[in-house]
Amino acid sequence: MSLVDFSADRCTLTSPTALPLAAGFLWNPHMMIHMTARGYTTAQFMQPEPSKYARAQIMEAKHFMLPEQGTYAHHPGRFFYVKDRETGSLFSAPYEPVRAPVDCFAFEVTPADIRWTIDRPGLRIELTLTLPVDDACELWEVRLTNTGKRDRQVSFYPAFPLGLMSWMNQSATHDPALGGIVADCVTPYQKIEDYFKNKTLKDKVILLSEQAPLAFETRQARFEGEGGLHKPDAIMAVQMSDGVALYENPIAAMQFDHNLAKDESVTHRFLFGPAFDEAEISRLKSLYLSEVGFAKAREAYAAYIAAGTKAIDMDTPDPHLDAFVNSWLPRQVYYHGDTNRLSTDPQTRNFLQDAIGSVYVKPETARKTLLKALSQQHANGSMPDGIRMYEGAELKYINTVPHTDHSVWLALLMEAYLDETDDYAVLDELVSDTETGEARTVRDRISAANQWLMQAVDQRGLNFIDQGDWNDPMNMVGWKGKGVSGWLSLATAHSLRLWSQILERDGRDGSAFASAAKAFNEAMNTHLWDGDWYGRGITDDDVKFGVKADIEGRIYLNPQSFALMSGAADAGKQQRMVDAIADQMETPYGVEMIAPAYTHMREDVGRLTQKFPGVAENGSVYNHAAIFYIYSLYQVNEPEKAFELLRKMLTGPNDEDYLRRGQLPVFVPNYYRGAHRQHPEASGRSSHLFNTGTASWLYRSVIEGLFGLKGCREGLRIRPQLPATWPSAQVTRHFRGATFEVEITRGRPGLTVDGQTMAGDTITDIVAGKTYHVQVGV
Amino acid sequence: MSLVDFSADRCTLTSPTALPLAAGFLWNPHMMIHMTARGYTTAQFMQPEPSKYARAQIMEAKHFMLPEQGTYAHHPGRFFYVKDRETGSLFSAPYEPVRAPVDCFAFEVTPADIRWTIDRPGLRIELTLTLPVDDACELWEVRLTNTGKRDRQVSFYPAFPLGLMSWMNQSATHDPALGGIVADCVTPYQKIEDYFKNKTLKDKVILLSEQAPLAFETRQARFEGEGGLHKPDAIMAVQMSDGVALYENPIAAMQFDHNLAKDESVTHRFLFGPAFDEAEISRLKSLYLSEVGFAKAREAYAAYIAAGTKAIDMDTPDPHLDAFVNSWLPRQVYYHGDTNRLSTDPQTRNFLQDAIGSVYVKPETARKTLLKALSQQHANGSMPDGIRMYEGAELKYINTVPHTDHSVWLALLMEAYLDETDDYAVLDELVSDTETGEARTVRDRISAANQWLMQAVDQRGLNFIDQGDWNDPMNMVGWKGKGVSGWLSLATAHSLRLWSQILERDGRDGSAFASAAKAFNEAMNTHLWDGDWYGRGITDDDVKFGVKADIEGRIYLNPQSFALMSGAADAGKQQRMVDAIADQMETPYGVEMIAPAYTHMREDVGRLTQKFPGVAENGSVYNHAAIFYIYSLYQVNEPEKAFELLRKMLTGPNDEDYLRRGQLPVFVPNYYRGAHRQHPEASGRSSHLFNTGTASWLYRSVIEGLFGLKGCREGLRIRPQLPATWPSAQVTRHFRGATFEVEITRGRPGLTVDGQTMAGDTITDIVAGKTYHVQVGV
Repeated sequence: MSLVDFSADRCTLTSPTALPLAAGFLWNPHMMIHMTARGYTTAQFMQPEPSKYARAQIMEAKHFMLPEQGTYAHHPGRFFYVKDRETGSLFSAPYEPVRAPVDCFAFEVTPADIRWTIDRPGLRIELTLTLPVDDACELWEVRLTNTGKRDRQVSFYPAFPLGLMSWMNQSATHDPALGGIVADCVTPYQKIEDYFKNKTLKDKVILLSEQAPLAFETRQARFEGEGGLHKPDAIMAVQMSDGVALYENPIAAMQFDHNLAKDESVTHRFLFGPAFDEAEISRLKSLYLSEVGFAKAREAYAAYIAAGTKAIDMDTPDPHLDAFVNSWLPRQVYYHGDTNRLSTDPQTRNFLQDAIGSVYVKPETARKTLLKALSQQHANGSMPDGIRMYEGAELKYINTVPHTDHSVWLALLMEAYLDETDDYAVLDELVSDTETGEARTVRDRISAANQWLMQAVDQRGLNFIDQGDWNDPMNMVGWKGKGVSGWLSLATAHSLRLWSQILERDGRDGSAFASAAKAFNEAMNTHLWDGDWYGRGITDDDVKFGVKADIEGRIYLNPQSFALMSGAADAGKQQRMVDAIADQMETPYGVEMIAPAYTHMREDVGRLTQKFPGVAENGSVYNHAAIFYIYSLYQVNEPEKAFELLRKMLTGPNDEDYLRRGQLPVFVPNYYRGAHRQHPEASGRSSHLFNTGTASWLYRSVIEGLFGLKGCREGLRIRPQLPATWPSAQVTRHFRGATFEVEITRGRPGLTVDGQTMAGDTITDIVAGKTYHVQVGV
Repeated sequence: MSLVDFSADRCTLTSPTALPLAAGFLWNPHMMIHMTARGYTTAQFMQPEPSKYARAQIMEAKHFMLPEQGTYAHHPGRFFYVKDRETGSLFSAPYEPVRAPVDCFAFEVTPADIRWTIDRPGLRIELTLTLPVDDACELWEVRLTNTGKRDRQVSFYPAFPLGLMSWMNQSATHDPALGGIVADCVTPYQKIEDYFKNKTLKDKVILLSEQAPLAFETRQARFEGEGGLHKPDAIMAVQMSDGVALYENPIAAMQFDHNLAKDESVTHRFLFGPAFDEAEISRLKSLYLSEVGFAKAREAYAAYIAAGTKAIDMDTPDPHLDAFVNSWLPRQVYYHGDTNRLSTDPQTRNFLQDAIGSVYVKPETARKTLLKALSQQHANGSMPDGIRMYEGAELKYINTVPHTDHSVWLALLMEAYLDETDDYAVLDELVSDTETGEARTVRDRISAANQWLMQAVDQRGLNFIDQGDWNDPMNMVGWKGKGVSGWLSLATAHSLRLWSQILERDGRDGSAFASAAKAFNEAMNTHLWDGDWYGRGITDDDVKFGVKADIEGRIYLNPQSFALMSGAADAGKQQRMVDAIADQMETPYGVEMIAPAYTHMREDVGRLTQKFPGVAENGSVYNHAAIFYIYSLYQVNEPEKAFELLRKMLTGPNDEDYLRRGQLPVFVPNYYRGAHRQHPEASGRSSHLFNTGTASWLYRSVIEGLFGLKGCREGLRIRPQLPATWPSAQVTRHFRGATFEVEITRGRPGLTVDGQTMAGDTITDIVAGKTYHVQVGV
């Protein structure tokens, strides 16, 4: 049996131990849950700031998630213990914390739920986790089946540790009237103003059970006793002692005793999550906690997930990629666009690039994002570091450090949005900004952003970097006010060029932006072309870096990618860059974003050089950077290299790769470990983080690059760039309300639509609702 | 065998399981370590802000310690695994994480080290932890002895998890040149200014070994494998695989294989702690890591601990109390005065009250504290919320909330200090403050503080409370600017009275303060005497609280205690108060500070009402409040009740009490669980926190209350208040350089010094260096 079975509908992992951090994730507009195959969980909900309901056993610092750092025995998890009352034998599903051997294990991630089927001698346990759409809570269905030859007496125990809820006040007990365990706490605070803020917080956590339990335990320490989580005293006892947690870390654990005849099954349903008060608990219970309630919730959730529509369906010689692109990739894109990564102050850069993905799966989200972002534009035309998602949201953490690239992404988003939707009317939309209250058109605002970029330059004509650009921790190149970013200058050139084209297509004069773009490209060629690649920038002290003279951080990927997009690099330069990248930065797991990784602080580059070599911005296979490069390769018609690198973004399909990277191919992670030439033993490991700007650009690269199915004013332009190994491919493209069944074959070049041979490569006059049958020869 | 054996030199716990959170603590001027009997640890060092070197497996929020919340499998700890290479049998000393059965277990806390002796079949393991004086590091000595009848092949593994050091950069390996495992990280940050601040941080953690190991493992996840912490794969293997941690949570684990003949022993020495660089590692190694180095460090540390001298040595019918007062209590007092609770911005109230203890164990510390505090006095005479311990230290957390009581503690400290030292010269000391730069005498400054209190009153003459007084979370009584504190008004009266007396003794006119004190007492009797006790205050909305009309928070202890001290309460009132307290607030574990505890938020009282009932300020046996009451009972000659309650501050000596409270009597904790009438099942449990203003006042109550050995201008006044059950007591009092061997006996009242009967109760004209033999009849 293979370790992983992967399709568009389902990803099945058959070992609880081979990929210890393998996980799936679910979300709805209120929450996110990351669930490992072994039963450990990271979940948070928005109220409106991100909050936990199952916590660590200690006071955890505020952060999103750190999945790469791994789990530990008391990591928050969802555990279902099963004890044979005759033999005393114990196991726990999915796997933690008992880690008992299983006959058969299947962890199944589907787009709308997460399931396990676990066979033990004579006993099967099936778990399903899904979410409702409109509430922050988990719906768990558990079925126990006697698969043996004799009757069985089993005790069954859901046990969800709740962790250290609060040092001010925490307690838990079972409440028969409410139908489950109710834990309560007071979110800790010290200042009076926080009391008023905290009044609306959901400080209760509930585990409701459809069936009344025989007994319960709510005291974590007493639950474990000397046996520990892997052999809890409370479970080894005949019956739990109905323990009430009085200011001690709580656990929601219940006992159900069953006598199962041969082939008999019993089904439990549980609801787990935060709650504000008893009224909310009652509402959640009556809404969801029944067979009918679960079925309705499942149906609604499946519909919610399906509402992130797909732009393409592909059928190629690469079924692994097909499965990913036909289902999991647009799902990840949809997640980003719909949740803003569960942040209330998304970085402007992320907010706008995530919307590039929404262009394909939910264009109305992209439009809203654009208008929301522009409503927070500064009076001088520049974009802020983060976008406040609600009145009163604060810019926090990295958003308090000034970065200079946020204005660059507007035109890039606009290009994708307009090409897909042809909604040029949006350019005349009036947007008032919160700073001045002035109403200006989208067009004027994007022009202003580009004009701001045009003037934010030094005497060489290169963009100042301040305390960072796309590369967040590159904070000391220009903090004294002089340093410039080579990458940003190229990104500006690219933005200006795109914006001039959009203006022209809209019947306006874009020439000022076009010539400014040219000037940026020329400045780069003059000051930062290093012979075989572009340098990354010039520091406050006038030192070029990301150049051959450097021993570490010698070559950066992003300037090369954007030089390909912006038109800065002529054909000769292009070839030298691609060769240098292949030589210095490519690995079996993708292309690194810096090489060699820094091994010690470089004070004129900054914080990124202090990250561990091969991790994140310091030379990992940072997929967001890698996909820029892949996208740019498609722009300059380098389909072989583009596809080779694109394909490395997915884990699998062979076991060796899964074991190496440790991740299921249900999402593209923000990075794989790099520094391949420095730390080969660690390279390839997944960061396991599914928040990444990669998803949008990857989807775009497949649609518009690999298949060349890109919108334009006239209609759908078709310029496939299949890899040489593919004799043919079929792809269904959903575009402007029409469907295009496209068959691409090697042979005589040409385009046939519904049997008619077409001149050129563009299908025009598209009729919504119509299905076009398209043959493309390449 | 009794569970706990307790003396002045040693406290021995004979079970690893009976008191799972039982612990001792060590400190030096650079660090603190709290060590449980089972091997879990909380340690921090100052650089100058408090920092961890062994961390949790996740990003922990910044906080001091939460010992009441308990431990969990991956709590930071110091583990020594021992595997029998022939049988494969495994255990870990002290007890976690294997939790293997032991033949014999002894956890021994002494004033200057922490030891374990653990017997397993045929094998003894002895552990000793001590600290050097001048560095932040742990010195571990481990001796393994073959106590069986045959030769043994054992593998021995120190394994210290280092946790999640940093999401930016963490790694570890064994460095033979440096002599041990060296882990490295970069303290996470995002702002440039923090880079410069962080440059001097000790980001390395080392476990150095005197002997070179056979093998090592530095990857926590690989160390555990599927076996888990309680049966780690790395230890079950024949040999560790010399694993290098590359951006993963590290562990410092080494393997040593020994063949031990019958009766043979082997000794290991380890040094564990933070380090800045390789030079520091080498220095630590050469200074400490040898038999001689350890011996010298032990000697120096014992001398350091002994430098906190004792004011008394007692020999009474209560040996349990004797042991505590003769050793552990002054040690705890010394810890407070010497470390400022490992805070860089101690609350002014704590800073000054901790110095009341220093008066007896290290008067020069008390003097320094006084001058330091006054140097940060505001221009208007009031004291700030916290004292900055170094230039650039910030007032944080609770110190950002304005409290009104900080000015009260100066006179209380001065009384204790002057009575003990007769150093009235300090009153003429000039102190410049940081706010104005003005130099003023100590006398003028304390007068100014008292004058500030005198004017910070409403029309009734009661003190405004603002957002809190001694009761930190009582933050909503007066936040609108009107509410007043009954307790604070009484404390002001007490302070004014003491200050007037000090001025008079110094030959000045104190009458203005004396009459102001009277006015405060009168205002209290007019407005807040509730018939049987004093109310706690009057809210912004003119509602009296802490009165009979209240269902919760009906009676508060502190106003009663300070009414006894301030002279507000006449004899009739005194009796009614004492009766009401006995009736409503006393428990088997001491006296509660509020009764009944609040069960829900009262918005005109504040945050304290949201704490869990019986926890901390919300009705626990909060020992700091309890000792105020005990001290005040001695002031009004109520020795029986005073002693009864004082005695309840100690855990033990019977097993039932130890099991209930869960703590060894090596320190007095900040509280025991209260709300005895509401949650009897939890009452009595120790908070396990050894930072508390209790220690100072408890020592003072024993010296000046119980034994009545109080200094005055003339010399030593002797007015013992022994409990009725004591026929006699002997006590040695160290006072102003002389020694007083005091024998107190029931019988004919009178005072005999060196055989001479004295008139009155005061020994005058004390000669330093002399020993006085004193008989007191009571």
